[in-house]
Amino acid sequence: MADKSQRSDVTLDTIVSLCKRRGIIFPGSEIYGGLQGTFDYGPIGAELKRNVKDAWWRSMVQERFDIEGVDTCVLLHPSVWKASGHVENFTDPLCDSLGPSRKRYRADHIEETECSLYRIADVTDGEPKPVEGAEIWAPAKKKAKEFYQTWWEKHLGLEGRRVKLEEVEGSATTGRFSPDDGGRLTDPRMFNLMLSTALGPVEDSSARVFLRPETAQGIFIAYETARAAARRKLPFGLAQQGKSFRNEITPRNFIFRTREFEQMEMEFFCKPEEFCRNGERTDMEWFDYWRNSRLDWYVRYGIDRDHLKFYDHPKEKLSHYSRGTTDIEYLYPIGWQELEGIAHRGNYDLSQHMEHSGRDLRYFDPQVEQHYVPYVIEPAAGTDRAVLAFLCDAYREEVVTRGDEGKESRRVVLGLHNDLAPIKAAVLPLLQNRPDLVEMARKLAADLKRHTNAVYDDTGAIGKLYRRQDEIGTPYCITVDVDSLEDQAVTVRHRDTMEQERIGADRIVGWVREHLSA
Amino acid sequence: MADKSQRSDVTLDTIVSLCKRRGIIFPGSEIYGGLQGTFDYGPIGAELKRNVKDAWWRSMVQERFDIEGVDTCVLLHPSVWKASGHVENFTDPLCDSLGPSRKRYRADHIEETECSLYRIADVTDGEPKPVEGAEIWAPAKKKAKEFYQTWWEKHLGLEGRRVKLEEVEGSATTGRFSPDDGGRLTDPRMFNLMLSTALGPVEDSSARVFLRPETAQGIFIAYETARAAARRKLPFGLAQQGKSFRNEITPRNFIFRTREFEQMEMEFFCKPEEFCRNGERTDMEWFDYWRNSRLDWYVRYGIDRDHLKFYDHPKEKLSHYSRGTTDIEYLYPIGWQELEGIAHRGNYDLSQHMEHSGRDLRYFDPQVEQHYVPYVIEPAAGTDRAVLAFLCDAYREEVVTRGDEGKESRRVVLGLHNDLAPIKAAVLPLLQNRPDLVEMARKLAADLKRHTNAVYDDTGAIGKLYRRQDEIGTPYCITVDVDSLEDQAVTVRHRDTMEQERIGADRIVGWVREHLSA
Repeated sequence: MADKSQRSDVTLDTIVSLCKRRGIIFPGSEIYGGLQGTFDYGPIGAELKRNVKDAWWRSMVQERFDIEGVDTCVLLHPSVWKASGHVENFTDPLCDSLGPSRKRYRADHIEETECSLYRIADVTDGEPKPVEGAEIWAPAKKKAKEFYQTWWEKHLGLEGRRVKLEEVEGSATTGRFSPDDGGRLTDPRMFNLMLSTALGPVEDSSARVFLRPETAQGIFIAYETARAAARRKLPFGLAQQGKSFRNEITPRNFIFRTREFEQMEMEFFCKPEEFCRNGERTDMEWFDYWRNSRLDWYVRYGIDRDHLKFYDHPKEKLSHYSRGTTDIEYLYPIGWQELEGIAHRGNYDLSQHMEHSGRDLRYFDPQVEQHYVPYVIEPAAGTDRAVLAFLCDAYREEVVTRGDEGKESRRVVLGLHNDLAPIKAAVLPLLQNRPDLVEMARKLAADLKRHTNAVYDDTGAIGKLYRRQDEIGTPYCITVDVDSLEDQAVTVRHRDTMEQERIGADRIVGWVREHLSA
Repeated sequence: MADKSQRSDVTLDTIVSLCKRRGIIFPGSEIYGGLQGTFDYGPIGAELKRNVKDAWWRSMVQERFDIEGVDTCVLLHPSVWKASGHVENFTDPLCDSLGPSRKRYRADHIEETECSLYRIADVTDGEPKPVEGAEIWAPAKKKAKEFYQTWWEKHLGLEGRRVKLEEVEGSATTGRFSPDDGGRLTDPRMFNLMLSTALGPVEDSSARVFLRPETAQGIFIAYETARAAARRKLPFGLAQQGKSFRNEITPRNFIFRTREFEQMEMEFFCKPEEFCRNGERTDMEWFDYWRNSRLDWYVRYGIDRDHLKFYDHPKEKLSHYSRGTTDIEYLYPIGWQELEGIAHRGNYDLSQHMEHSGRDLRYFDPQVEQHYVPYVIEPAAGTDRAVLAFLCDAYREEVVTRGDEGKESRRVVLGLHNDLAPIKAAVLPLLQNRPDLVEMARKLAADLKRHTNAVYDDTGAIGKLYRRQDEIGTPYCITVDVDSLEDQAVTVRHRDTMEQERIGADRIVGWVREHLSA
């Protein structure tokens, strides 16, 4: 299990409150009191998410010779999820409280839930007593925590892994209690996480389809058509970005675990080792390659290497078809958690779809003159989790000393990579009441906007405007002052160093473009 | 109603077959026999769609001072759709056949359906007789067509407008018959087009939410939070792209009408005329502005102006709150059809959400010192419909005369705008068996790929490779030949003119970038 190191530099509350204050990300359906597990991206957040997606697409598709993009549907034929095993296995164990609340819990999350909510007096006699309005009573809390920890270690092993009913059924007949009402909990029952809907005019079971819980299966379905059209030989990959949906029972931790989320997944089809010739990379070598390559990607876009680590799933916990699964974990403010998973899926998915669809999905390898089903390495990233990681890693608070009097003030900076920064340059007139100055600034902003995402802002004093741009990670602020009208030059302020330099107004577009692509 | 002009240059079948052949767009869940009303985008299609979306975002968000982007959820709180009127009014009239098939039809599409499927012998005696395996019998077809035309003109008016139950109920008691089995059809009943799903662990009605049938309502919900965060004054807009879902009874015409589709919508919040001062644009002037601006956008990206026209909805057919609705129609191979709708929605949506959510969504106008609910102009485009229009307009077949013998051959060209072309440049080695030549070509492709979407292709003879790139709209083919190794120059071939020019290899990246942005 992940170790429990904590970030001291940033809390989740800090990020949530910045996101709320600047309209970056906020609860979905907010004016109606919210819809649990959904979040909307406002203007700055929408650009940040676009940039994360574009950076992924650029490095996974555009810059490479061996990967193509696809864009497949959210709604797939029901047989897809039977073949993939999702109908049977994509489940979570749930318990109901037999107490007055009748609340339902995700069984493998109860340990954590009770830590924040436990309100009972004692569990020593097996049946705890709720205490009206009582604060958490430390001995009870500790005891309960120990109990659940032992229980889950024994019965489930890793959090996050999908468990089978046999693994949990009847396994906890000794007392487990609701953290809300102290009621005894039922044994866990399995609950499918896929959302379903009825397609077509008649609501019968034949028309019931699932909203995809992952984009990957859409790629497997389209694999042979896409491969043939692109005239691809192994190895090659198909990449896709898009929304997925999971009926999480306890969505939480902001955009970390939501019911509607966005994924960036790539399926890399390669040769099983036995068919490799002349030093071709084997499937396990590709698995290692993608493990490292994906971690490097986060570092390339600004995540501190010390905030990332590999978690290799132990062999005995792997699915029968998998030859390896590694999570890239990020040190979120809530602790080490999965940011991306890289899985060696063997030939499981294609074989299953072959069997269920009756379509031949084998590859004819001209080198060895044989048909076989390719192996697949899958780096699967959560876009929202990546956005959250980039936000956490970019966030810092600084004390700034200004002027001769040494007046101290606090500034919040998002030190985002230039490619990820929602706004690349802000053009700010020093005075809002000078039409000639405003005109020059607006013209400059318009010139920049033809090439990149720039803004014009004159809704405050310059110090305030700088602070606003720092807080959303704008790398360059360009100030037009009274001198600019004379010398046709403007002041560029660098976000990170706060250093300023004077640049000719006619060179500014080139200067910004050059610095952005540096 | 739209006039029935037809395209003679391209048929829908031609586009469908090109898309299938090159893996551009093909049926969703294809290997399982497809899932009606869903389509997947393959490698070339995914890039084309991305480019259409990026072009829209660039001109609607990046280049403008008055529009911000947002990215809101597919799953919204159920109250949203009550407030918006979708629960009550987003319906289609359906009829059931009482014949042996028990098939269900969208009542306002029967006229068209019967033209392709009508298999009955006669309708003169009121109850038609099915004729086993009979071809369409012209007199019966004509009679049925007249009948349905009259019926729909009388009872519904325009196709595409949502009708209320009162408008169709009991209105067609005289015989209407199933085009499949000749059975008498029931009177139309109203059927809601929204797909629903159950969120949370318990499947009760309180947890039932809808998949958005349009992205617009998400914008209205997020309006005040986004406006405040961006410190916006009127007028300004919020733009969004994303998937929407409609349970269309008769999805058809390729990607024109599907159950899962992508939208590009912008809500422009502006001042009602009475609050405008000093020559500010009024709401109706903004309506006109967006009507023209959106049509210009399609022309800017290559659509023939003669293939576009406005269809202004007649005043008496408008919703009570609307002050005007205009469709931009495109001459698809299936006839003139809606490509984008521009609607003056008055203050309807924000007022409804104010009432249902209890949240004050009024704008305080500092100029007139008054609170009021903004008016909204909405240009709403279908991404897939735009993709289809761009494909149809770009498609052409040419007879090419080559060589001294004047040998004629046929080439298919997609004359796409550079910004929309899925692949911008293809680097092709003239000989695949010369390692030095291949190396030079691959290096050139790698250099290009750092800046744009380029490919390397050596899987055929040069003529075939050119033809492949023409067919998917690649503007520049770059050929590396034996001379290239000597003179360090390569041949650039222009897609449209087939003219060739010799360019220094070291200048090629600059040349391509320059020509792409020209």
